[in-house]
Amino acid sequence: MTPVWFMRQAGRSLPEYRQARGSIGMLEACARPELVTEITLQPLRRYDVDAAILFSDIVVPLRAVGVDVEIKPDVGPVVGQPLRSAADLARLRPLEPDDVPYITAAVRELVAWLGPTPLIGFAGAPFTLASYLIEGGPSKNHERTKAMMYGEPALWHQLLDALADIAIGFLSAQVAAGASAIQLFDSWVGVVGPDDYRELVGPHTSKIFAALEPTRVPRIHFGVGTGELLGLLGEAGADVVGVDWRIGLDEASRRIGAGKAVQGNLDPAVLLAPWDVIESRAREVLRRGAAAGGGHIFNLGHGVLPGTDPGVLSRLVDLVHSASARA
Amino acid sequence: MTPVWFMRQAGRSLPEYRQARGSIGMLEACARPELVTEITLQPLRRYDVDAAILFSDIVVPLRAVGVDVEIKPDVGPVVGQPLRSAADLARLRPLEPDDVPYITAAVRELVAWLGPTPLIGFAGAPFTLASYLIEGGPSKNHERTKAMMYGEPALWHQLLDALADIAIGFLSAQVAAGASAIQLFDSWVGVVGPDDYRELVGPHTSKIFAALEPTRVPRIHFGVGTGELLGLLGEAGADVVGVDWRIGLDEASRRIGAGKAVQGNLDPAVLLAPWDVIESRAREVLRRGAAAGGGHIFNLGHGVLPGTDPGVLSRLVDLVHSASARA
Repeated sequence: MTPVWFMRQAGRSLPEYRQARGSIGMLEACARPELVTEITLQPLRRYDVDAAILFSDIVVPLRAVGVDVEIKPDVGPVVGQPLRSAADLARLRPLEPDDVPYITAAVRELVAWLGPTPLIGFAGAPFTLASYLIEGGPSKNHERTKAMMYGEPALWHQLLDALADIAIGFLSAQVAAGASAIQLFDSWVGVVGPDDYRELVGPHTSKIFAALEPTRVPRIHFGVGTGELLGLLGEAGADVVGVDWRIGLDEASRRIGAGKAVQGNLDPAVLLAPWDVIESRAREVLRRGAAAGGGHIFNLGHGVLPGTDPGVLSRLVDLVHSASARA
Repeated sequence: MTPVWFMRQAGRSLPEYRQARGSIGMLEACARPELVTEITLQPLRRYDVDAAILFSDIVVPLRAVGVDVEIKPDVGPVVGQPLRSAADLARLRPLEPDDVPYITAAVRELVAWLGPTPLIGFAGAPFTLASYLIEGGPSKNHERTKAMMYGEPALWHQLLDALADIAIGFLSAQVAAGASAIQLFDSWVGVVGPDDYRELVGPHTSKIFAALEPTRVPRIHFGVGTGELLGLLGEAGADVVGVDWRIGLDEASRRIGAGKAVQGNLDPAVLLAPWDVIESRAREVLRRGAAAGGGHIFNLGHGVLPGTDPGVLSRLVDLVHSASARA
């Protein structure tokens, strides 16, 4: 039976999430262990998904080491003083478990609640975190990020190395507290070509996966629009590579190579269509996932869109289970 | 010698453009032939580029047939009443040359000025125009667009057919007035996978290229993040396929197939780096463009970023010419 969970299964698509959050700011919510626990569990009360994913945000560890970052509604992460020089690097230091007591407490509590259901911990990868820090917020063209990457490679490597250490600290704390798998999100790395990835991004991502190796937890890696990078994302050290909806899982698996599983990849926007369309598309994802041959975790090709009907997700989980049990 | 021009070579990166526009709204500027002519010519006074591209916008023909659309500074096209039902389709009608007298006048004037230098006309492709019309403005996830595409395919096909007719009218008017090549921009079609492209997008794009066939002008087709679609963009009927920076032109050309030229593909953000980085990257683009074998027009992988130094573009044009003349 193909396992299934959804990126952003906890969050704005659920009325009980909107109620639990109320007017509490996103990062404030992420710092309250009882709220993190509640929100993480909400989708598991509705859906028969095979994993929970910790409710948090990729900028949480940045704030935990002292970066002035907020999450503005309808905007995203906004950094008070964008990081653009060697002097700015001093603002980053490695993350210790004591920096995120609310995370470790929530993970411990969740693991007890969840029993045999795995809890996936997560972190943001260095490229994507660097983009927020350098641009000062979400960016369409990531131009300042690339200007540093292309124009000041030494500074760039120092920055990404520091961010890798922060990700290692954040993931290690989650695993030590009981998370049984991790996903490293490099959401925006698809704006970089393969040659640049190999030289300027991959080594830092590899450092993270290598540091997690001794824990033996499965390591998932995901970014959007990464068709040209799939092989490199696997080579960086992931056990499972997440794939967006732009490419079939069979072709994705060919690019990733043997020995790794794929995760994905139904277009989240398909869930806004009538059920017969969703069903036929989901079956096609399952067919290609099976053809991939290295193992398949069903997921969407990106996060659940806020306008998604939870009833549809519930039905989709059941379809994935029943269709793959029969196969 | 490899020809070179730049998407958005006219526009915000030039101080003389900002001066010419002053406080005149974007669509108002596009409707004044003397301003269109002046702005189109501005980059040719600075750069030794091998083509001019008409200064206009992909929503100009929509406004010309009566759609309530504006371009808001720092936002983009905003549609007064988003198009979401069969009844809304009545707002679209084919475009006649008389609907855009300011375009045909500017093209005639420009062709006289330019002499042997080609003027590239352009239009937006049906998918990208549909996205603006359905979403009501720029969109991150194109979710309403996809909801219609997946959920109401009959309505979707009617809409794209109407938009194809508008593009045909707009391009034909430019060619009749003297434009010697055309570029069809499907800027956001990279959010669609190959199977959906083939069924839901390609036929409408093909209709446009087929309608232009008798004019015998070279037809260029471009979208961002289209690595998985390159072969299909060529099959739709383009003579030249534009490629963004995520993939080398040699690999792009393999996907596009024989008999078609490639255009691109220096990352626009590279132009924010020091000159030695720009030079080495530009030479790599030329090397791969030559290896592609089917002909290469040097360009960026997307439009010139507003913060680009015009002096750098000028130097880049000279580098492309001198390096490719020697090769």
